[in-house]
Amino acid sequence: MKDFTYYTPTRYLFGRGVEAKTGELTRWMGVKKVLIVYGGGSVIRSGLLDRVKLSLDNEGIEYLEMGGIQPNPVDTPVYDGIKICRDNNIDGLLAVGGGSAIDTAKAIACGVPYEGDFWDFYAGKKIVEEAMPLGVVLTIPAAGSEGSGNSVITKLDGLHKISLRTESALRPKFAIMNPELTFTLPPYQTASGISDMMAHIFERYFSNTPEVEITDRVAEGVLKAIIAEAPRVMAEPENYEARANIMWSGTLAHNGICGTGRQEDWVSHFMEHEISAVYGVTHGAGLAVMFPAWMTFMAQNHPVKVAQFARRVFDIVEADDTIAALKGIEVLKRFYTSIGLPVTFAQLGVENPDIDLLVAKLHENKGETIGGYYRLTAKETSEIYRLAL
Amino acid sequence: MKDFTYYTPTRYLFGRGVEAKTGELTRWMGVKKVLIVYGGGSVIRSGLLDRVKLSLDNEGIEYLEMGGIQPNPVDTPVYDGIKICRDNNIDGLLAVGGGSAIDTAKAIACGVPYEGDFWDFYAGKKIVEEAMPLGVVLTIPAAGSEGSGNSVITKLDGLHKISLRTESALRPKFAIMNPELTFTLPPYQTASGISDMMAHIFERYFSNTPEVEITDRVAEGVLKAIIAEAPRVMAEPENYEARANIMWSGTLAHNGICGTGRQEDWVSHFMEHEISAVYGVTHGAGLAVMFPAWMTFMAQNHPVKVAQFARRVFDIVEADDTIAALKGIEVLKRFYTSIGLPVTFAQLGVENPDIDLLVAKLHENKGETIGGYYRLTAKETSEIYRLAL
Repeated sequence: MKDFTYYTPTRYLFGRGVEAKTGELTRWMGVKKVLIVYGGGSVIRSGLLDRVKLSLDNEGIEYLEMGGIQPNPVDTPVYDGIKICRDNNIDGLLAVGGGSAIDTAKAIACGVPYEGDFWDFYAGKKIVEEAMPLGVVLTIPAAGSEGSGNSVITKLDGLHKISLRTESALRPKFAIMNPELTFTLPPYQTASGISDMMAHIFERYFSNTPEVEITDRVAEGVLKAIIAEAPRVMAEPENYEARANIMWSGTLAHNGICGTGRQEDWVSHFMEHEISAVYGVTHGAGLAVMFPAWMTFMAQNHPVKVAQFARRVFDIVEADDTIAALKGIEVLKRFYTSIGLPVTFAQLGVENPDIDLLVAKLHENKGETIGGYYRLTAKETSEIYRLAL
Repeated sequence: MKDFTYYTPTRYLFGRGVEAKTGELTRWMGVKKVLIVYGGGSVIRSGLLDRVKLSLDNEGIEYLEMGGIQPNPVDTPVYDGIKICRDNNIDGLLAVGGGSAIDTAKAIACGVPYEGDFWDFYAGKKIVEEAMPLGVVLTIPAAGSEGSGNSVITKLDGLHKISLRTESALRPKFAIMNPELTFTLPPYQTASGISDMMAHIFERYFSNTPEVEITDRVAEGVLKAIIAEAPRVMAEPENYEARANIMWSGTLAHNGICGTGRQEDWVSHFMEHEISAVYGVTHGAGLAVMFPAWMTFMAQNHPVKVAQFARRVFDIVEADDTIAALKGIEVLKRFYTSIGLPVTFAQLGVENPDIDLLVAKLHENKGETIGGYYRLTAKETSEIYRLAL
């Protein structure tokens, strides 16, 4: 087990109707005037945004709002948001939505008190030392950003999709999680969210750090819960219990508890980021394509942890690691397919991916070799992309 | 799943030599003068206390110290500590040790800013609204108090052993966890700690709240990790990896992650508290006696969750719930016995327990009927104590 720090000071409020506490928690985090950041019109149509504003009004908290944040969020609204905050004495952020709204709000939160270009943090030139406090009302369980210190933003100029990771500077102060708010999520988005949270566990689970039984067992437990609840939530979108289990799983998948004490990987995320930056696909769907491909490469080249996953999560009984891994990958692909997700580029809607371009951008962004579990050259990442054809 | 809040703002620093960061973290929590609370002489003999003081000196933090806290901590040192803090302008606590030192420090932390008798909080007359900041250097993985908002103190007058539970007011601000500090724990204390952490999971796991797959799977995962690592840590007390896995498991067992979204039980703890208050036994050893007895009663009266535990944690294959539960209990008893723990009153060193006295005090402290998973009358708690003979 590696040495680690673990610090997750996010206050979670989970259950029916908890969005009525938004004002109270915004006050609790010491904020008097917030910028509400949200995505499309669904939070308006559902009445959620009005309920959130009413709750802020009840506590005498002022607010401005900025909507229209798109999936795979880009840098331009971040600059707009920073200007709005500076021009209006805003002292906190409130994201209402999923990962895109939250990650945009996080970028604004660290950008406002910083004199330079906020992109410096994403480009790795500066460490985030200060950020405005941020609260979340979660409507899409997927990205896990409500409990993480991370944010992913795409720079439009060059389509660089970059993940910024902080220990705690960008963790939300509170996260309001009402599973009812997820009843109306379309099936493809629900399934993509499930793939996203599983991927967050995989990136931590596939590690060479030995002697991490406790973290492995927790990670396997969260995976088992997701795999058990996923068919229910797809079949009954308004099943509160299934939605609740999936929603909390999405938080545990990414708040760090599945990663303590070990080197993490994240190479499949990096590989998917290039796909969604270039082809605009849904992140979770792209991950459902990338992970079986990455695992198939590993089954041949470094199967041990993929075999453990197959045995412990899918109850594969097979002594040979490569065969066990390959059998597990088949079950995983059937699982993705059963909830309506693609497992190939073609199913993802990318008939002829420009793999040379993806590989070039990947290594330009991340270095000549990449990956924690297995160090991949450009020749090898190219092979993995081809395994997804 | 029940509605819940989850808020665990403890900063964990885990690894070799991390006690050297004590001063830095004490400063981080905003404290200038601490009272160091510790137990017996082992922290002096090992040199740990000196290293902690050096780290405080390096940051210019003043300190006083109060040692001699005994297992099953009582109220008298709490009153002493409150007086020391008030007389010396102390603004924070630092517990160096295990649950007894930490729980005593927690009682002092909430007692100092409170005008009345600190016991009001434990007696349920007052809610803790204010407490001095508290840091922990953990030497005994068992009580999980380093990551919980709880504290258990025994009032000497009448031997009332009472657990105070807070959502976050009494959670430590930081916990320093170096597995090397546990190498010298004697086998019986190591094993009792393992039983204690398993019990913390059991009290949350045995619940009637339906639809908590995610929390069940996490709880089962932590139990599996403990059961896998326990024989290694008993056979090789200086095996860093086994000690590390057990240490982190002890935190996860009790920081709330195994209990989100459901009613908890805690009746076996209450029953054990009476045993250790009257007979002064080691808490974890008492729990190894009580849990199989409680589970055996449940196998006959309400087996469903005990059967799930047997199937998922011990791989028992058996369709009938009562039989599955009973088989699981046999494996659990063999496990306890294998690491040197008692599973009967006699093995615990209590040849002729005064069960009538235990039952009378239990219901005097906790009410006519007790328990979450199954509501027990005095006749039934008496039967469970007898099952432990």
